[in-house]
Amino acid sequence: MPGEDCHFPDWLPARAMGCRALLLLPFLSFGAAMMIQLGPKSFGSEYFPTNPTSDPAVANNYSVLYFQQKVDHFGFYNSRTFKQRYLIADKHWKANGGTILFYTGNEGDIVWFCNNTGFMWDVAKELKAMLVFAEHRYYGESLPFGEESFKDAQHLDFLTSEQALADFAELIKHLKRTVPGAKNQPVIAIGGSYGGMLAAWFRMKYPHLVVGALASSAPIWQFDDLVPCGVFMKIVTEDFRKSSPQCSESIRRSWKAINRHSTTGSDLQWLTKTFHLCSPLNFEDITTLKEWLSETWVNLAMVDYPYEASFLQPLPAWPVTVVCQYLKNPNVSDTVLLQNIFQALNIYYNYSGQAQCLNISQTATSSLGATGWGYQSCTELVMPICSNGVDDMFESYIWDFDKFSNDCFNQWGVKPRLNWIITLYGGKNISSHSNIIFSNGDLDPWSGGGVTKDITDTLVAINIPNGAHHLDLRASTAFDPSTVLLSRSLEVKHMKKWIADFYKNAKP
Amino acid sequence: MPGEDCHFPDWLPARAMGCRALLLLPFLSFGAAMMIQLGPKSFGSEYFPTNPTSDPAVANNYSVLYFQQKVDHFGFYNSRTFKQRYLIADKHWKANGGTILFYTGNEGDIVWFCNNTGFMWDVAKELKAMLVFAEHRYYGESLPFGEESFKDAQHLDFLTSEQALADFAELIKHLKRTVPGAKNQPVIAIGGSYGGMLAAWFRMKYPHLVVGALASSAPIWQFDDLVPCGVFMKIVTEDFRKSSPQCSESIRRSWKAINRHSTTGSDLQWLTKTFHLCSPLNFEDITTLKEWLSETWVNLAMVDYPYEASFLQPLPAWPVTVVCQYLKNPNVSDTVLLQNIFQALNIYYNYSGQAQCLNISQTATSSLGATGWGYQSCTELVMPICSNGVDDMFESYIWDFDKFSNDCFNQWGVKPRLNWIITLYGGKNISSHSNIIFSNGDLDPWSGGGVTKDITDTLVAINIPNGAHHLDLRASTAFDPSTVLLSRSLEVKHMKKWIADFYKNAKP
Repeated sequence: MPGEDCHFPDWLPARAMGCRALLLLPFLSFGAAMMIQLGPKSFGSEYFPTNPTSDPAVANNYSVLYFQQKVDHFGFYNSRTFKQRYLIADKHWKANGGTILFYTGNEGDIVWFCNNTGFMWDVAKELKAMLVFAEHRYYGESLPFGEESFKDAQHLDFLTSEQALADFAELIKHLKRTVPGAKNQPVIAIGGSYGGMLAAWFRMKYPHLVVGALASSAPIWQFDDLVPCGVFMKIVTEDFRKSSPQCSESIRRSWKAINRHSTTGSDLQWLTKTFHLCSPLNFEDITTLKEWLSETWVNLAMVDYPYEASFLQPLPAWPVTVVCQYLKNPNVSDTVLLQNIFQALNIYYNYSGQAQCLNISQTATSSLGATGWGYQSCTELVMPICSNGVDDMFESYIWDFDKFSNDCFNQWGVKPRLNWIITLYGGKNISSHSNIIFSNGDLDPWSGGGVTKDITDTLVAINIPNGAHHLDLRASTAFDPSTVLLSRSLEVKHMKKWIADFYKNAKP
Repeated sequence: MPGEDCHFPDWLPARAMGCRALLLLPFLSFGAAMMIQLGPKSFGSEYFPTNPTSDPAVANNYSVLYFQQKVDHFGFYNSRTFKQRYLIADKHWKANGGTILFYTGNEGDIVWFCNNTGFMWDVAKELKAMLVFAEHRYYGESLPFGEESFKDAQHLDFLTSEQALADFAELIKHLKRTVPGAKNQPVIAIGGSYGGMLAAWFRMKYPHLVVGALASSAPIWQFDDLVPCGVFMKIVTEDFRKSSPQCSESIRRSWKAINRHSTTGSDLQWLTKTFHLCSPLNFEDITTLKEWLSETWVNLAMVDYPYEASFLQPLPAWPVTVVCQYLKNPNVSDTVLLQNIFQALNIYYNYSGQAQCLNISQTATSSLGATGWGYQSCTELVMPICSNGVDDMFESYIWDFDKFSNDCFNQWGVKPRLNWIITLYGGKNISSHSNIIFSNGDLDPWSGGGVTKDITDTLVAINIPNGAHHLDLRASTAFDPSTVLLSRSLEVKHMKKWIADFYKNAKP
């Protein structure tokens, strides 16, 4: 539990350690640019709900295995190894005839991904598939240096996407060598979010090991200046505006209302009471309060699913719409506006009706993976995010790489490289690759950094109207809109084409 | 001059340091498997002739530049940088209209490659090309830790093909940013031998940076069990057998003749005298003597060019044929046979007529790059080579990876990984890539590990009958056989197609 243990090197100043902030704002750290001054936050935390299984029926149908990996695939001096955890489900596997669906694990516990990627379970029978879920190094149980993995920059030095892809490559070779009837079978990489980026990059870098990749909600272009840094918050805003323009306008006006109502001690008392906060606010908490609010709106946009679900929090169907019912009128006094904001928050944090008070140090129930992600977003996965308060409903936040870089150095003792990911993976110039599906829901803020237009016949975009963050990878439900049903069926069609081509080319 | 300085870590046992052997058998180290017990040898040395310029007319027409590279592209902890040397020749360069021909430097001084890759100079005008020759890290002047670069396994840890490819990627990005009119121009990777492997791998891993690659005499399949380990020595033998079966048979019989004539002190005196050796032989020199002979035959096969040339040594046209004139009769006494062997050696080592005696610690005049290559062939570039004395004319040598691995560990303190290169670059499963020319001469022993059949329409093999090691990359001469002229013209045709496709795809 790296995030909980909050391991930081001794030489980091206490303020920079930001352990509190780390637990406080887990998600937005994917947009760590905005918030880094308060510490690392976790994109991964979106995956850690109160209820750890969305589909208990499949939760026990896998084996847990471990594979010995080199800590450093790219050098020979460090000969240390560690155990990478992976899961296998082979109920529908057909030896010498089936396909291996390989989940390229991202920043969290692999069991959780396994339980929340129902799509793979749903298509296993049709594809006679063996399901493999590979844990990403430095997450879950796959810690290269055990409890010391996050000790300092030297121990964290092997936490990169390149090393993770190499782990996947070695694991696939191992499976082909050891699983009966797997040797000559095709493998397809599947992943969501950062895991979707890894699936796409894996097909790009190791096309000899996977016949194709399904990259769901993978913002592979949310780097450097490939897309405007404002696009993320603009999409969040648009989700609320679509529900009603009054809703996004209410949120836009709330920031100044908070600023105006946080100048005196009695202001703070009033805010604490109005938001039903568990701990009384101090003046220095106001920034944290606003970030907590921002992240709540972002999270709501990401998990705006068409059915009741328990992803980040237990939520009703279409939670943005529900929330916006309390934000119908921006033309009210500050006090009424902020009371309305509380009503909206109460949906997100207290849908179950069990909460006694709201805690601004939490937006989701677990921060597993937060430390690792904090490091990754401060090294190679630098994703610029900004807001201007005009095209979006947030306070203005300017993307300043130099400041970001210095903050990263203060926090981790290493400096990020802004361009490396593009040099390595090609940025927008990826047309020579093949067999990758990029799926995105238009409600998902990350779709702004994703591939939403076909690049070639075999590098295809699937856009899912009214889809939130990797909705297509979730288990099929009776409430799925036709758009996601169609998308999943298209995805399977592409996979079958890759498999057929594989067999055609394999013939002598 | 790493090879000459012979830097080795203090903890290596004196015997394992093998500095003498390192200077003794530079080339065969590409097949280091055979000879590692005596120390590292250099594939690279083939490139270091007595006369450092084969084409003095072009030798000064370039600028020498340096680019700051990260020592470790794959981690953030080590923030050290070093200066990579590269050369630019832009006489024919057309800004906003030309092509960048990028030589992916291999295991040696880049100036030497520049001067010995006349093909690039010859096509520069036709392609309006800027020529760039990028030095490989740990060779020439591009030493990541200066004089300490070869100090120990920790300093050598950044000497891998992956790091070298990343250097090339960063350098190309730098050129596109800084050279006027280069930003939107196509780049083609070109290399020979290990440089050819790098060119091919570069196109595979960074297809967004180069529109294609010319991989000349690149044995990308000389790994693990992709080709039989005996193929290399078989081709060497075939070259001599083609000249006359008596020739290869004479060499085959010479080993036992040496064995029979190295049992007494007077035997050694006789051998020393017969071979005109500079230093008297001891009993422990006999293995070295035979390796020196083996390497001489291998070198002759590699540089069996159709014209007088000064590559490893000054040599006549078709040197194998010339040498074989002294080896017409295997059915003679041991003493006559060995006297004939000397006559053959005398062509290779004394074509100029200046040599007073022969030195078994040399097969070429420089060992630049030997240390680096010794390390590379003991880590990721493990190329199994064996002989059986039946299908080839050499003494039997069994490929034994375990022994090889232990010897590498004794020498470098690191263990090789046999499968990594195949896991990383795909082995024979590379059909999803595009735009790579694999050219091979059938006289070249390395063609046995090369791609000699088309894989797809855009992964093409060009075979050059009567061609030796990367003959096609050498400057055009009046003595070039039509086969190599045709090959070069085909190569240019492919390049023009890549360039045309690049512009076609670049259009909006």
